[in-house]
Amino acid sequence: MGGEGGGGGEEAYLEVEYVAAPPHPHQEGVGGGEEGDGGVGGGGGGGGGSLSEIPCVINHESEVSCRRDESEVYVPFSFIRSYFEVYGQVEERSDGREVFEWTHSYSRVYQPHTPYLPTNTFLNFELYNVEARDRVKCISATEGVPISTQWQSTGYTYPIQIAQFGWWWTRTSTLNFKTHESPSKGGVTLQLDEGVTQNLLVVSVKLLLKGNSSLTFGVEFKDKKPEVLKIHYIKSERLLLVKDRQIYYGLGEQTGWRHITRNVLIDIHKGAAASPSLRKKFKKVSRSKVQVSWVRVQGEGEVSSVTLSSAEHLQHFYDAADWLLRHQDHRGGWSIPVPRKVIGGVLELEAGWYSAMAQGQAMSLLVRAAHLSGRPQYLAAASRATALFHTNSTQGGVRTFFPGGMVWYEEYPTTPSLFVLNGFIYSLLGLYDLKEYTKDNNSSSSSGQDTIADRLFREGMRSLKTLLPLFDTGWGSLYDLRHFTTHVPPNRARWDYHTTHITQLLLLSSLDPDPVLSSTAERWKDYMNGKRAKHN
Amino acid sequence: MGGEGGGGGEEAYLEVEYVAAPPHPHQEGVGGGEEGDGGVGGGGGGGGGSLSEIPCVINHESEVSCRRDESEVYVPFSFIRSYFEVYGQVEERSDGREVFEWTHSYSRVYQPHTPYLPTNTFLNFELYNVEARDRVKCISATEGVPISTQWQSTGYTYPIQIAQFGWWWTRTSTLNFKTHESPSKGGVTLQLDEGVTQNLLVVSVKLLLKGNSSLTFGVEFKDKKPEVLKIHYIKSERLLLVKDRQIYYGLGEQTGWRHITRNVLIDIHKGAAASPSLRKKFKKVSRSKVQVSWVRVQGEGEVSSVTLSSAEHLQHFYDAADWLLRHQDHRGGWSIPVPRKVIGGVLELEAGWYSAMAQGQAMSLLVRAAHLSGRPQYLAAASRATALFHTNSTQGGVRTFFPGGMVWYEEYPTTPSLFVLNGFIYSLLGLYDLKEYTKDNNSSSSSGQDTIADRLFREGMRSLKTLLPLFDTGWGSLYDLRHFTTHVPPNRARWDYHTTHITQLLLLSSLDPDPVLSSTAERWKDYMNGKRAKHN
Repeated sequence: MGGEGGGGGEEAYLEVEYVAAPPHPHQEGVGGGEEGDGGVGGGGGGGGGSLSEIPCVINHESEVSCRRDESEVYVPFSFIRSYFEVYGQVEERSDGREVFEWTHSYSRVYQPHTPYLPTNTFLNFELYNVEARDRVKCISATEGVPISTQWQSTGYTYPIQIAQFGWWWTRTSTLNFKTHESPSKGGVTLQLDEGVTQNLLVVSVKLLLKGNSSLTFGVEFKDKKPEVLKIHYIKSERLLLVKDRQIYYGLGEQTGWRHITRNVLIDIHKGAAASPSLRKKFKKVSRSKVQVSWVRVQGEGEVSSVTLSSAEHLQHFYDAADWLLRHQDHRGGWSIPVPRKVIGGVLELEAGWYSAMAQGQAMSLLVRAAHLSGRPQYLAAASRATALFHTNSTQGGVRTFFPGGMVWYEEYPTTPSLFVLNGFIYSLLGLYDLKEYTKDNNSSSSSGQDTIADRLFREGMRSLKTLLPLFDTGWGSLYDLRHFTTHVPPNRARWDYHTTHITQLLLLSSLDPDPVLSSTAERWKDYMNGKRAKHN
Repeated sequence: MGGEGGGGGEEAYLEVEYVAAPPHPHQEGVGGGEEGDGGVGGGGGGGGGSLSEIPCVINHESEVSCRRDESEVYVPFSFIRSYFEVYGQVEERSDGREVFEWTHSYSRVYQPHTPYLPTNTFLNFELYNVEARDRVKCISATEGVPISTQWQSTGYTYPIQIAQFGWWWTRTSTLNFKTHESPSKGGVTLQLDEGVTQNLLVVSVKLLLKGNSSLTFGVEFKDKKPEVLKIHYIKSERLLLVKDRQIYYGLGEQTGWRHITRNVLIDIHKGAAASPSLRKKFKKVSRSKVQVSWVRVQGEGEVSSVTLSSAEHLQHFYDAADWLLRHQDHRGGWSIPVPRKVIGGVLELEAGWYSAMAQGQAMSLLVRAAHLSGRPQYLAAASRATALFHTNSTQGGVRTFFPGGMVWYEEYPTTPSLFVLNGFIYSLLGLYDLKEYTKDNNSSSSSGQDTIADRLFREGMRSLKTLLPLFDTGWGSLYDLRHFTTHVPPNRARWDYHTTHITQLLLLSSLDPDPVLSSTAERWKDYMNGKRAKHN
């Protein structure tokens, strides 16, 4: 144990042994199989056969019954499952073979493959699976919105749930396009994906018609005798005309951009009713037999967006949006009428608290309502919803700061703060939707002047990109930073929140090129397969 | 898929199904064994017998050959070891039974059981196992200190290694006591633990003798004819006297506190040489046969510390301390003469960099040299070593700040900063040693005036307690915060650094009552046994 024996000469130092030197961490080390009988080899292949039992002592604390053969020790999955929180079950393949499916995590990442647009909804719905609720007690007959029971069994209206309820009904509103083509001749045709347009028979279009241009829907009739019906919308004062089995609706003579929403099924029914040739086949055609196949602008026109929806879904969507309109308070917010214990005795919110997540999701919904309806009230309500972002949690608002001045918009505005990640990002998406939509639709406002939503979004993104690494544990993500603010243990995000984080980051990375967003998302995806960050 | 069939009536909502709802994360869920053939049961007990092979598909990516019986699937440990970074091997118990020893981690926590004292050394040595080096090329014949080859194969003097080299030789200097008793009659006797005092025959004592008080060592002679020799140190001008087989050394007539260091073996040899009764037995007694058994103050005296050392070890210790004295530069530091690539191309240090860890470890060594020798130069050098703590890394110093103003003393003062945890704590311990020793030995300075070391220590501790949670991943600790400052993946601490962290925190928790230190240490200990923080 170190050169104590010598008389102090230097030779002794070269023989120094260190007490309890750790095995080199990069060796296959303990159990590497190079130790003769003591080791275990790799692979474990070679079929079945007789295995003997061997007790396995776990961390000197407990015992599990394992199996062994001459080269390998086998550990029961039931132990592994609870020790490591992994998942597995026996499944039968199509060829009858049984395999054991081991999965490190139970959730799936939704990989967005269309760019994020504030008026697009299908993509975003995947973000709300987490909140998908069996905690909806019922739907209020008065206002057509869900009553929540999550935190109070007698039920209350919870703005986040209402916003997401509205979202649910927009999930089938896909296909929002932005085009800025001005074809001088011919036209531009938008071919729609048959797989997603089923039942989406309400079409909203932002349209600029010049000269003799027109908008046409090609509607496929699926039957023994299939047919493609063309419905034209033209500059004409004449309301309705049918000619050569084609239906023409007049939009009037106004020039300039207009936002039109047509229930195509009704347009077919009414058009057919006015035409002897179409009447029999189409006057009462069932929705299940028709599908919008393409949208075309002919001549000198422009289309800036096309949205398909379902009529019933839209009604529920508007129920939610109108609820938000009616219940927005004087502070621009929707308060939660029940108390919330985040950490009992440490972090609690009294009834009447606001949530940046509610504000943001409401904004997102209201922006889409504004887009679909063209009515200004929805946008005004969305704008008013930003006010609480300027008020600190300590003053009843939703804003807090990380040391050094990084702003955060709190899902649960406790004191001390929580810094919940997913709720913050939802609020950023709402701000993004608002600022983008305002920009697109406010060409009259002086360009170069940032809106409030713009500034809130920008500062929030700056914070997010700075603080995001603090949510990375090297093998998963954290739900919040409570361990930093209250000294409780770190609050790991369970897998479905982890995948929400990933989806959110992938989405944001399409809006902001900073590599921290995409590299973090990719690393967090790897964690789901059991990969982890390296150790030093 | 959710209420599309109805005409919009509310009844449909209650039947809503959600697409791809995640399994409830708290169910035993997948693989819980309640699914008939598909599941696997728990326990895996029941002896050996025939097991069949079953392929195990890992995360849809790869395949491993497993075994199964009717109720359980068994996974080869060789796979588990590399997937989860755990350790295991077959071992034979004393009763001949073989067990498989599974360990989650490979390092051991050293649990301090004596309080930390700046002049105590045995405890602290355990902290330096990590740095224990097979990278010592040789010991310089010129200065008696090691030449390092860690980062440059031709060798260079590396102050941290030199300080630790000095430490190595103090590891057997145990037993530093603080007492403030003033016995008026009888005396106070310090009984020493025989298990640790072997070969420690250099005794340093801080002593106040009043009136007729005296200091006595009881030295046990281990032989066929055992005996306890008493050696007294008294206020007398007479150098040496032997009477009734007791040896008396005169310390002179000065009053007041004095620091004496006696090589007890030499005192026995010389005393025996002067005495016919003792000469034969003790004039050349071997060190292996004597051991200091107790230390006593008789009469009105006080002892404020007693330190036992080994003479040879002390020499090497002083070699290191003297090297530090000679090579401290005009900035009070010991620069590292080689460049250091922390992250190639991202974080690099040019030759001539300083390290807060080197400064702190040097301070700790110099304080002990001051204590053992009583010479003021060592303490002065330790005080000068604080200067670099006031200079930022960007200006060639070792100081940086976390957003919000929390100071950090950098082991590697890169730009951007690294925030290495263990090196920072070493620097805090050095500051603690310096400020405590200065306090104990400077009763003349105005009380209430903080020293520089005091302030640096206090601010550093404030930072540590605030930022420590950022190093907690929920299953281990981080070595540094490079993921935060440079956006690379998190840098997990391997197990031997993880245990260093724990030891350091346990030590600090004996100096500072803030529960974050001890609760973090306890949680980090649990991580070593495979426990992890809860998920949400």
